Amino acid sequence: VSTPETRIRPQRADAQRNYDALLAIGADLLAEHGANLPFEEVARVAVVGKGTLYRHFPTRDHLIAAVLRQRFDQLADEADELLISTSPSNAVNMWLRSFDRIPERFRGLSARVGESLADDSSAVSTACIPMKEAFARLIHKAQADQQVRDDVDPVELLGVVAALPAGLRDEDGSSRYIDVILRGLRT
Amino acid sequence: VSTPETRIRPQRADAQRNYDALLAIGADLLAEHGANLPFEEVARVAVVGKGTLYRHFPTRDHLIAAVLRQRFDQLADEADELLISTSPSNAVNMWLRSFDRIPERFRGLSARVGESLADDSSAVSTACIPMKEAFARLIHKAQADQQVRDDVDPVELLGVVAALPAGLRDEDGSSRYIDVILRGLRT
Repeated sequence: VSTPETRIRPQRADAQRNYDALLAIGADLLAEHGANLPFEEVARVAVVGKGTLYRHFPTRDHLIAAVLRQRFDQLADEADELLISTSPSNAVNMWLRSFDRIPERFRGLSARVGESLADDSSAVSTACIPMKEAFARLIHKAQADQQVRDDVDPVELLGVVAALPAGLRDEDGSSRYIDVILRGLRT
Repeated sequence: VSTPETRIRPQRADAQRNYDALLAIGADLLAEHGANLPFEEVARVAVVGKGTLYRHFPTRDHLIAAVLRQRFDQLADEADELLISTSPSNAVNMWLRSFDRIPERFRGLSARVGESLADDSSAVSTACIPMKEAFARLIHKAQADQQVRDDVDPVELLGVVAALPAGLRDEDGSSRYIDVILRGLRT
């Protein structure tokens, strides 16, 4: 009954489940503590052994990099979906609202973590490139349709939104001035 | 011919001239070097003796405080003039463009310098209050005339404008995204 396949599958599913749990808890603790998040606490809260934690993430920075990559990839996917599912200006607005809710403590981590993992093939410093490219496609479509000002550069705009003051945010992390920016983008 | 008055007047005029020259050079060097500006260099460039420099400004922080106070007071005066000379929305736009051109290096200095001069009666920490109050009058008039969104708070808005990224500025110090903010303020 027990073929190699049936023996391997549950292991893989377990490994994936552990990885997902560690990543989810890692994201929570990163949002709460920033780059100094208590690393082994991630395993404890995820109810996963320390050995499993270290097998998936040799260092805290590997975990942080994986959390950032996941968030950036989700945002890239969201941009691709919005590109085909709604009007260009609505897509830009909805996507920038999502981007604006990236937890404050995630910001500025990419460069630091990317540096410490410079020898890693999955360097986090390049992790946000797909997200930036996907957002650029949204902006350029909206500009082609004359729904967004021509003088706006997508990557610069992300810098402006990311710089909105931390103190002026609602409980869900949205800046109370994101509406001013979105209104200001219109032609 | 030489009355006490004629003897005193040139001295006062000289003192004022020296003070103004030190303040102007101080503003230039502060914009260039930030809080670590070379203090005695101010006297050299202004062609004023070191003794005179130290008589007007006992420490570098006293000079920085005076430069900041002067800039904030100029902006307060400009707001008061705009309040009566143009439309509320135009006044808000013109004034925010001036505020946006405050040199990058001046930002964040108020708190630090204010702290070091806490025993000084002319504490710089309160120096920007008249400017904030004058801008609030502009915003509230524009809101009463329904030319600016109701959900904008004047002091918060200054925080948003001051946070516009340093890297996205033209040669005159204007943010290339101030237009997005100004457009976004409209009702």
